Amino acid sequence: MQFSVYLPPQAEHHPVPAVYWLSGLTCTDQNFTTKAGAQRVAAELGIALIMPDTSPRGENVADDPEAAYDFGLGAGFYINATEAPWQAHYQMYDYILTELPDLIEAELPVDSQRRAISGHSMGGHGALMLSLRHPQRFTSVSAFSPIVNPSDCPWGHKAFSGYLGQDVAVWKNFDSVELIRSGATPPPLLVDQGTADSFLEEQLKTDRLIEVCQQRDLPVEIRYQAGYDHSYYFIASFIESHLRFHARHLGLR
Amino acid sequence: MQFSVYLPPQAEHHPVPAVYWLSGLTCTDQNFTTKAGAQRVAAELGIALIMPDTSPRGENVADDPEAAYDFGLGAGFYINATEAPWQAHYQMYDYILTELPDLIEAELPVDSQRRAISGHSMGGHGALMLSLRHPQRFTSVSAFSPIVNPSDCPWGHKAFSGYLGQDVAVWKNFDSVELIRSGATPPPLLVDQGTADSFLEEQLKTDRLIEVCQQRDLPVEIRYQAGYDHSYYFIASFIESHLRFHARHLGLR
Repeated sequence: MQFSVYLPPQAEHHPVPAVYWLSGLTCTDQNFTTKAGAQRVAAELGIALIMPDTSPRGENVADDPEAAYDFGLGAGFYINATEAPWQAHYQMYDYILTELPDLIEAELPVDSQRRAISGHSMGGHGALMLSLRHPQRFTSVSAFSPIVNPSDCPWGHKAFSGYLGQDVAVWKNFDSVELIRSGATPPPLLVDQGTADSFLEEQLKTDRLIEVCQQRDLPVEIRYQAGYDHSYYFIASFIESHLRFHARHLGLR
Repeated sequence: MQFSVYLPPQAEHHPVPAVYWLSGLTCTDQNFTTKAGAQRVAAELGIALIMPDTSPRGENVADDPEAAYDFGLGAGFYINATEAPWQAHYQMYDYILTELPDLIEAELPVDSQRRAISGHSMGGHGALMLSLRHPQRFTSVSAFSPIVNPSDCPWGHKAFSGYLGQDVAVWKNFDSVELIRSGATPPPLLVDQGTADSFLEEQLKTDRLIEVCQQRDLPVEIRYQAGYDHSYYFIASFIESHLRFHARHLGLR
């Protein structure tokens, strides 16, 4: 597995907290690294950025037979696959939750007590879902354009049926809207969603997250941003706001 | 020729001033567009960003026989070539100075009276050199890691001898340090140069620009930034400072 890390200058003096960034379909660790412009703000705030890949990679790693962009390589969906042949390598849930942090915190001056998580699209699903299942592990969670209800959208249906099999009851354990409906409570949560996002209606369905959070009376902040699309330009425009949100909950200011 | 333009929201209501960005060796119009994170600040300030390519392109455009990264395609050096076969298409000076602005200002809501110019490395040379030769055309100029004395560094020597021939007296007309030495005065000027830039000593030679500006007693701002290298991460870290500098001289605030 390849990943990127940004360490702020403060890490030369003491361990710093980290924001884990989960990217979306087709991405590697490089998309956020080169396109989001997050390092400038992370340097000011004293936050490490941990930027993993979106799936296993390598010679013997299974891929979609037609190399689809939304399944297989580049599309791990941050879950542990149970179905063959995917279960051999597609264990992204464990990788993000424990394997990668254990390595980072053992090898780098990164504080093991203060982690936040964020992501985009499929990575927004990953960030929300992981923080809902392990709220004590993350001081805060944020997402850009997340897939909030993967059990009931084409991207999620394809991924979950492939990686997890046909039992929809199992899928709900990894679906943010269903987790909240069943009583899970996220750490402090911020979401930005562009109104000009071409995936909003069919895949992202932000209103379902708003609705279930209202039903539970959860104090979350979910913002529609007028005119923004699904691209990294959207992320570059608002990443500073997200990092300042995480900094507050990480105890940085 | 392919180029990119960012129009800020203010352009829906009135013509906006523009910053022309000249990229460095190997770049196209996409490097700054996707990696600098400049749109967020340009949107706030109301500045159009005009991002041209670094050389002519196309089936019949000459390239270096060995496809060197520092000559031919991707390496136009913002001058008009006089030598064969380059002179047929390598007319980047005229393209940046008049052809592209004429097109932009005819087709888009961009103010023809307020232009600033900036660039990186080879593009820093282009921005400085063009503003020194046409100071009335640009309200301000800035550069990251510019090649300030191309007549006397390996990149410039190769490019100028190839595009302009062997007469060094001709080269000096397109060399920022030599232009200032000969009496040219830039518009308000800001330069950032990283101290960990591996090209600083052999190619960039920032001290020569400082020295000749001191000899002329020119009120320029040339900053060494400790620990920064030649990459777009450096640009992403300080582009906000450059755009705010240009905004002041463009009369925006």
